[in-house]
Order: sequence, then C-alpha cells, then structure tokens
Amino acid sequence: MSAGWFRRRFLPGGLLSAPGPSRPRASPVPYRRPRFLRGSGSGPGPADASRRPDARPVRSPARGRALPWNAGYAEIINAEKSEFNEDQASCGKLCIRRCEFGAEEDQEWLTLCPEEFLTGHYWALFDGHGGPAAAILAANTLHSCLRRQLEAVVEGMVAAQPPMHLSGHCICPSDPQFVEEKGIRAEDLVIGALESAFQECDEVIGRELEASGQVGGCTALVAVSLQGKLYVANAGDSRAILVRRDEVRPLSSEFTPETERQRIQQLAFVYPELLAGEFTRLEFPRRLKGDDLGQKVLFRDHHMSGWGYKCVEKSDLKYPLIHGQGRQARLLGTLAVSRGLGDHQLRVLDTDIQLKPFLLSVPQVTVLDVDQLELQEEDVVVMATDGLWDVLSNEQVARLVRSFLPGNREDPHRCTAHPWEGHVEGCSPAQSNDPISPLSQSLLSFFLLATLAVQKQLSIRVSHQWWATRRPGRRTKRQEPGGNSK
Amino acid sequence: MSAGWFRRRFLPGGLLSAPGPSRPRASPVPYRRPRFLRGSGSGPGPADASRRPDARPVRSPARGRALPWNAGYAEIINAEKSEFNEDQASCGKLCIRRCEFGAEEDQEWLTLCPEEFLTGHYWALFDGHGGPAAAILAANTLHSCLRRQLEAVVEGMVAAQPPMHLSGHCICPSDPQFVEEKGIRAEDLVIGALESAFQECDEVIGRELEASGQVGGCTALVAVSLQGKLYVANAGDSRAILVRRDEVRPLSSEFTPETERQRIQQLAFVYPELLAGEFTRLEFPRRLKGDDLGQKVLFRDHHMSGWGYKCVEKSDLKYPLIHGQGRQARLLGTLAVSRGLGDHQLRVLDTDIQLKPFLLSVPQVTVLDVDQLELQEEDVVVMATDGLWDVLSNEQVARLVRSFLPGNREDPHRCTAHPWEGHVEGCSPAQSNDPISPLSQSLLSFFLLATLAVQKQLSIRVSHQWWATRRPGRRTKRQEPGGNSK
Repeated sequence: MSAGWFRRRFLPGGLLSAPGPSRPRASPVPYRRPRFLRGSGSGPGPADASRRPDARPVRSPARGRALPWNAGYAEIINAEKSEFNEDQASCGKLCIRRCEFGAEEDQEWLTLCPEEFLTGHYWALFDGHGGPAAAILAANTLHSCLRRQLEAVVEGMVAAQPPMHLSGHCICPSDPQFVEEKGIRAEDLVIGALESAFQECDEVIGRELEASGQVGGCTALVAVSLQGKLYVANAGDSRAILVRRDEVRPLSSEFTPETERQRIQQLAFVYPELLAGEFTRLEFPRRLKGDDLGQKVLFRDHHMSGWGYKCVEKSDLKYPLIHGQGRQARLLGTLAVSRGLGDHQLRVLDTDIQLKPFLLSVPQVTVLDVDQLELQEEDVVVMATDGLWDVLSNEQVARLVRSFLPGNREDPHRCTAHPWEGHVEGCSPAQSNDPISPLSQSLLSFFLLATLAVQKQLSIRVSHQWWATRRPGRRTKRQEPGGNSK
Repeated sequence: MSAGWFRRRFLPGGLLSAPGPSRPRASPVPYRRPRFLRGSGSGPGPADASRRPDARPVRSPARGRALPWNAGYAEIINAEKSEFNEDQASCGKLCIRRCEFGAEEDQEWLTLCPEEFLTGHYWALFDGHGGPAAAILAANTLHSCLRRQLEAVVEGMVAAQPPMHLSGHCICPSDPQFVEEKGIRAEDLVIGALESAFQECDEVIGRELEASGQVGGCTALVAVSLQGKLYVANAGDSRAILVRRDEVRPLSSEFTPETERQRIQQLAFVYPELLAGEFTRLEFPRRLKGDDLGQKVLFRDHHMSGWGYKCVEKSDLKYPLIHGQGRQARLLGTLAVSRGLGDHQLRVLDTDIQLKPFLLSVPQVTVLDVDQLELQEEDVVVMATDGLWDVLSNEQVARLVRSFLPGNREDPHRCTAHPWEGHVEGCSPAQSNDPISPLSQSLLSFFLLATLAVQKQLSIRVSHQWWATRRPGRRTKRQEPGGNSK
C-alpha cells in the first residue's frame, strides 16, 4: 500500500472512491461453525437461530476429536443478540514446506524430504461484527495466508541467523555482521510473516465480500507455536493470557478506539477530510453542547497523554471522533474496535464517511519463549473473545482454570472437559453464585492451550496439514510424503 | 498546530516554506554556564574554549550553593569535541500562583494568600547540537513556559478531582461522573502542562533563533516534584533512573531514530514529498547497492515490528531515511535524536529537505508516586545526558552511586561531593581501572536527586521562585509575600 493509494482510496476526489462497474455477484459466504465442532451437536447450517432464547448452549469439540496439544475449545452463545453466532474459530497443524535455495516465486515447490518440513500449530479466534461473513472468511483463509508468508521466508527462519539475502548468497563479507548488529532473529521473520498474513487476509476478505455483496468485519487473535516459541498475534479486543501456578501473564493488548486514541486522532489531524466536517477529533469527558460554548473544559488532542483545558468553540460541539467510555466507546459512533479484518465498506450511518482508513489490520505480536519456561502440567494459555474479558478479570479466569485442571490430570480431554460443557441456563448475577453467571449477556469463545504440550511435541514432524490447502493448478514434483488426510 | 499549517509549512509549494522578509537581526543568544555554577570557577563567558585539550574539567556548584533537595550536579567536558559545552542545565523552585475563579487570561494575577501558592521543584538538562544556542534558550525559558502552563490549570490541580469546567461551574449534574469515568486525575493536568510547555518552549526557540540568525537544537530532560509526585518528562536521548537499595527503575525512555522508527517511517509514508525523492523510507540491515538489485533482502516498513524479505528495486538503493546502528543511527543522515527542541532551520546538507517535520517536541512523561514509596536515605534519581549512558549501564551507574553515598551521610552536599569533583585527566579505558575512564570521550552532565528530600519538603511553601520571571508591565495587586530573593 502506498501513500498515493491511500489518498486515492479514501480522500475526496480519489479515483478509487467511486464504486467500480457492477460485476456478476458471487455466492454469499456460506454460514458454518468450526469444523472441529462437527459431531458435537452443532450442524453446519444456521442452527443457532433455532435455539431457545433463554438457553445458553455451550459447544465444545466431541470427545474423540482432539485439537492440537489436546487444547480445549468452547463457545457460549448469547441467544438474543444476533441471529447467527458471529464468533468463529480455527485450529490445526501448520506445515511449512521448504523451497530450494534460489527457487523463483513461480516455480513449483520442491519437497526435499519429510524431515525438512517445519511444523507448527495454529489456533485462531475471530469475533465478527456486522454479520458473520468476515469472521468465516478469516477462519477459512488466515492460516493459508500465514503458511504462504512463512514459506516465503522459511529459509531465513531455519538458518542460525536470518541471512541478509534470502538466497544465502553473501554480497558483502560483512552482511552477517549488519544482521547481527540489528539484532534480527528468526522470530522476527515469524512476526513479519504474521503481520503480512493479517494484511493479506484483510485484502482477500475485502475482495470476497465485495464480490458477494456482503459486509462485516472481525477481530483476530492467533496463537502459533513454532520452533519452541509461542507467537500471539492480536488485532482487536480479544485477549490471551498465560496462567501459571504463581503467575498470570498477559500475552496480548486490546486495540480499541480508547487504547488507540492517539493514533486515530493523529490520522484525523493529518487528513481532516476523513471526518467530512461532521466530527471533532478532540476528546472531551462528554459530548459538548451549546451551554459549554466559551467555557474552558477538559480536552485531549493527538499529541497529549495528559489533559488540558481549552476554551470551547463551535466546532468542538460536533460529534467526537471517539465517543463513549469503556465497552461503550465507539469510533465515529460506529465501531468498538480499532484493529481487525474486513469492514472495507463500512460507513457512518447515513453518511459517506468511511471507517476503514482508521482501522489497522496489522496485529501486535507477542513472543513467549516456551523452551525457556519451566512449565508445569497446569500451565495454560487462555485465548478468548471479549465476551469473557468483559465480565471476568485475568485473575478470575486464572482462578477458574486452576480450580478444575488439577482434578483431571489423567483426562487427555481435561482442557475441553471444563465446567461449562453442556448447556448452561441463562441467569443473572443476582440469581446465582455460579462464577459464570455474569456471562449470561455475552457471546464468547475461547481456547485453552496446555503449554507443556508444546515442549513434548517439538520433535514431531508431520507432512500433511489438516486444512490441506493447495494452489490451484500446481502439483509437487515429487510425491508428498504421508499424504493421508487427518 | 493544524494539518493545514503543517502542509503549508513543510510540503512543497507551502506558503510558509519561503523565507520571510529580512528583518533587523536580534543579538545572538549570549553563551553562559548554568547560574548555579557561579563561584565554582566557571565564568559566564566561553571559558570552555581555553581549557587544555587533555584535561577533562568537572564542574559542580560551589559548596555553599545548595540546589533544591540538596541535589548534586556535575558536568564533565570533552575538551576536543566542540568549542563550547553544548549541554545546559537549570534548576530551582517552581512557584505556581493561583488565579481567582473566572479570572480572564488578560487580567492581572490575584494573589490570594501565601498558603495558596503551590510549590514544586524543577531540574532540567538540555543536550545541545549544532551550536549551544537552543540549549541556552531552553534553559532560560522552559521553566517559565511550564509555570505558565501549570498556572493555567492550577485550579483543576488543587481540586479533589479536576472539574470538567475550569471555572468549577457544573453545567451537567453528571459532569463529575464523566471525569471520574475517564479516570482523569490531577497528575494528568501536570502531564498535559509539561507537554504543552515543551511545545511552547519549542516555538519560542524557533522565533528567537530565527530573529538572531542562529541555529541548533537540543534534547530536554526535566524532573518536576509537585504535590508528592515526581514527574519526569523526556524528549531526546537523555535518561533518568531511580536508584534504590534493591532496585534500579528507568524513569524515561530514549527517543532516537531507532526507537521511533515506525512513527518516522509512517510520516514519510503519509507525506513522501518530505523525502524529495532522495531517501527511501524502508529499513535494510545496510545501505543497498547495485549488486543487491533483484535480490530478496531483509527489510522493514512502517507497519512492521518484525522483518520480511523484499525484492530490491532501484528506488531501494536511495539513502535510507534512518541509517546506521546504535549511537551511529541518524535521521536523514543528519540527526541522532528524534525528539527535542529547536532545529527549525535544520536541513539535510546541500538539500532543501527539512528535519523538523520528523521531530517531536512533545515529551513522554513518567510519574513516580514518591509518597507511596518507602524511601531510604540512599534512594536517588540520576538524570544524565547520553554521554553517561553511552558508556555506563543503569546498573553500573547504580553501583557507582551506591558506593559513595552511604559514606557521606552527614554531609548535606553529599550528592554534590561525588567522586568526580575536581579535575579528572583524560585517559583511555586501557590505561586505567577507574570506572569513569570510559567517559573520557564524552561530554555529559547530570543531576543526582535524593528522593527522600521531597517528602521532607512537601510542607514547605515559598513565595518567590529563584528565577523570578515576571511578565513585563505587570504588577500583582497585593504585595507578594516574602519577596526576598534567595
């Protein structure tokens, strides 16, 4: 993406602002639940809509259906909020093939031998809004984008130090020294690949939704275990934490209009045209009104971490770029998150003001060096959408997890067999002491990853990824080893 | 500053880019050392130039000249690097007067009674470059800007909670609740005042340097103790740390082209015109050359924390926006810092490419709640310019400080009477085991603040600040109490 592209796409008079010629519509993205829920009573159709409004079904994978690391998954559905469950999830093994040195982009992959595959694991949660389509597309697509991005740099990842030139060819004798001085490590290539994969997936979603005439967006929280490290990439307001016996460690930060206020205000400062004269980029404790004119009131602008007072002018009475507080905070009065995938067509109601220029699809990536931790059986990573974190703190979730894991040490499904399995009736906090009763208003989904498993599985090399993506019209030159699908 | 102003000022064809009509030149800013060094053997003139090139004079305040909190100060001069010592320092009491409710901006100050003065303390280090003028102006000006900014919000600072309206008038009954929900505290007003003061000071420096035909810039590191808290505001590559018996806590972050890479690249992405086709905004491990064309090399763009590989095109061979590593990293091949004051006229050598649009004058502010710490006699804050931190780590500095403070408990000047008092001969690390021998190549200055003193001095109210700034043509309506200068 270039600055020129941005200006043409989002600023008034830009060529790309105009709708393109109408093309025949593609089929809508079909609704489905995650594949690993098959056999657990959730059909592939929009069965959610038929549930009782006072029931809160909890869905988990069937007992015989192990996720990577025997991870647990559950989704708890808010029966009234939307017709479809807009959360989606995806997980599986991530098998990165190796391209021969010097192979061109458009050459076929050369599979050298099974041992040279690099294998990881992948878990992803997508919290949709404005319809389920973007989250479904993300669940179908992001892992493929990530695999492609990792395969493009895998030569650098498996080297002792990423080479200056991917070919391994050394043009300057001191090239390794330059790389060393910059502190570039293999994990930086994985971080870069995650960043690129999110962007690529966002572009795919934009094209697909435009083709099918659908709309919507989603957050994305991804965990990838690779080469002894756990990478957590987050774009949106989901969250991952590491729960250990004596420690609760956040593995992600939330990206909302509040947490990204300065970035968003800065963009509106640089391109005031994006607000079309309808919004003020300044932040005030509440929306101002006529009585405030001429008064000195608390405010913040893009360059301020602290607060100051300013004399209220007429333009300050406009609707704020970021308005509301906590869960109610909205970007342009419309959206509760500031990063994620999709939303290419999203506009402020009854205006032509676009949300997309203010949204980032790039995730923030945290790296957990699993090999360096002295892991215990009960150490887990909890990844969950905002439905969980809106009502339970990190510490409360940690207490819940610690309360049921130790009692089920022999059960390989212990991360799945959590206390919320089955159906939980809707109830208000006042009606029950059940620790999950506050969840009754929320839609949420989460993964529970036993971190010790990654150390045990580091030596496992598999040759076929469960999602079995193939580039159309391509065949490997040699037979892919172990080609039986799981 | 508005987006329109930015575009007119910095983009091609902008009205403000053209030099204004020539005006009679003001006198150059006179060179001087900090006032509190008077009597310590450093005259106000450019005496630095006459020192022996192999000597490294260390200057401290005279023994009878106590700084606030009996703080220590020293500067160690590199005899060969520049004719003048480009570091400057300033410290003193900060006396904030209170304006009556509803008093207009242009009314005279109404001094209600001595008890209603709010007193703080102020220490500041300025590391100049391109000449000493900007650092001298900052040392002369920033405290006055800060005092003005604090006086403009002092009513909010002394309230239990900053009121929505500075007048205290409540327009909506729920205004206090809005402020509460935003979590706005008195310290946010001090942070806002520091941010505004730095910007105001930067504008003053720009005007003064333009008027006198001088150039230059400086970093600024400021510590302010106020209402039981210590605020550390930093713009540049100086650093402050808190040294306690069992803890070394950083109180600031450095702002350099490396640490602010993404912000700087982002600006070049938004306004490619700022690079005038002469630079590439992309980061590579080294500057690329013809042999790299067509190769896939490691790179980073503005949206990336990780690294990727890209195929080298001709435009990638341009000089990098940020080039070099560590201490050698330069913005546009010119400047080693990315925040600070001044540099309004600074351009890339032999071009019209300006540095200023990439520089921020806004500091990052850290708040240390001194009242909440169980302070010991030996707990100190060390503030120093990069000359110290380039050669000694935080831990090494902490060890040095811990080694001499406990032996001088009865000495009120013990923070000043440090082991570097007097003259230290220049020597290389190979010639000596003296822990400060690596400093021989560096110019540095630093303050040592005993944190326990702030708790002891909290109840002291003084009525006259030592720098005694007065607005011209104004008199207080009532007699200022205790008007004897210190």
